[in-house]
Amino acid sequence: MHCFINGQFVSIQEARLGIRDLALLRGYGIFDFFRVKDNIPLFVDDHIDRFFRSSEITRLPLPYTKRALKDLVLELIELNNAHRSGIRLLLTGGYSEDAYTPASPNLVITQEPIKPLDASVYQNGVALITHEFQRELPTVKTTGYLTGIWLADKIKAAKAMDVLYYTQGHITELTRSNIFIVQQDNTIKTPAANILPGVTRKNILALPGEKFKVEESVVTLDDLRKAKEVFITSTLKKVVPVIKIDETIYSGGKPGTVTLALLEQFEAFENTWLTDHGVNP
Amino acid sequence: MHCFINGQFVSIQEARLGIRDLALLRGYGIFDFFRVKDNIPLFVDDHIDRFFRSSEITRLPLPYTKRALKDLVLELIELNNAHRSGIRLLLTGGYSEDAYTPASPNLVITQEPIKPLDASVYQNGVALITHEFQRELPTVKTTGYLTGIWLADKIKAAKAMDVLYYTQGHITELTRSNIFIVQQDNTIKTPAANILPGVTRKNILALPGEKFKVEESVVTLDDLRKAKEVFITSTLKKVVPVIKIDETIYSGGKPGTVTLALLEQFEAFENTWLTDHGVNP
Repeated sequence: MHCFINGQFVSIQEARLGIRDLALLRGYGIFDFFRVKDNIPLFVDDHIDRFFRSSEITRLPLPYTKRALKDLVLELIELNNAHRSGIRLLLTGGYSEDAYTPASPNLVITQEPIKPLDASVYQNGVALITHEFQRELPTVKTTGYLTGIWLADKIKAAKAMDVLYYTQGHITELTRSNIFIVQQDNTIKTPAANILPGVTRKNILALPGEKFKVEESVVTLDDLRKAKEVFITSTLKKVVPVIKIDETIYSGGKPGTVTLALLEQFEAFENTWLTDHGVNP
Repeated sequence: MHCFINGQFVSIQEARLGIRDLALLRGYGIFDFFRVKDNIPLFVDDHIDRFFRSSEITRLPLPYTKRALKDLVLELIELNNAHRSGIRLLLTGGYSEDAYTPASPNLVITQEPIKPLDASVYQNGVALITHEFQRELPTVKTTGYLTGIWLADKIKAAKAMDVLYYTQGHITELTRSNIFIVQQDNTIKTPAANILPGVTRKNILALPGEKFKVEESVVTLDDLRKAKEVFITSTLKKVVPVIKIDETIYSGGKPGTVTLALLEQFEAFENTWLTDHGVNP
């Protein structure tokens, strides 16, 4: 598999960064990630837009226009011809003189195999645990996953898939997913603030609301406990039903009907998008 | 300059890590840093102890005993023979298969030139700004400096040296320093919890308290505003007087007498330590 690193396409085994890079020394880096299906990068413009927003907020300049970056992604996809895969865009703080001040950023684009989630995840739903934590620069897709990775043992012990963060009584997001709750009246809510604005989340919010009404708002821990159904969304997971959070069981311990309907609606939307974007623009 | 990377001493220009390292991709890494004076690593055992504690908490195993790691440090110092310098120990999450789960850690030891702080810092004192923030895994010296680096523009605009973090009305620490306040009755307090236990902080706490009484406790923003003097401590800074925090001026806008006495006492302590450890054990 090839990757792109600072202006060159090289084999991923040869791709290296020096040990003065600020993402390595000080966790100063951003990234983005999207799926590739039949050599088409899914929702690529949304991801490139977000990558540029992350770059602006962290003041890590990108040496390409959005169009040029997209062309590099398409070139890499053509080069690798690896059908079921993901593309990772990584931008780091660069080689810092004083090991603290950002320098000229390093840009790395990798394509990596992905494995689809086990079918049981969709059939049976998943469990989550909660943890009080607020991610730094939440609207930025930073490389900061320390707390989530550190919680791995606790997540495993609870037979959970992941951890849901909350802060001051309000739920926010998971390590790599957004969360939605379906209320008793079938209205759907997702946290509005202190989160990474996920692309799948955005697509769910934009689905035609004939059947369901989805709104962004404050979601309290109490709202969460009283919810009828819960589901999470991400680029890799699409829409995953949640059946348990800490000690609370949702929708009788099996995936909820609203959740499953939305998963179906989202997959139809994705397929339509793929058909519409089947030819490289 | 040479460094040590995964079992080998190589030139720092040749030292590289692969792009699947988890410190790079997910900010999962720890480090430590200490000064070298006349080829003697200052308070090296304290730093190695802390590095091992960080390694235990983050479950990143070190492939050496403390004694063996210290021998590697001494070997590197002898090899480089760079008198005024710092040693950085870095341990990362390793090359992760799924870009999320820690693998076999990468260990890097670098020796780097340091420049002493400008004399004006001690003569005139420094300004700080405050920011509400709690560092993740605060007792661990992680590579997580995102918020501090992101605040650089704000720090610069305020003509400040650094940022003091507080959480729920309690002050904690700076990006790379601990903080002490001298109260009106000359008692000295430093935050006890949610901080990195600094080695200079530990040494200040252990100085013979004939003249001053130092205690670890809760320090509120109100305690801070009412303080007579403020100073910060770190491996590179030793004891630096603070004369302004946000809009509050301390000790008439010049370094306080208690602070300067403690700086002198600390430097005497350091010199005694160096004399006592002048021969490699």
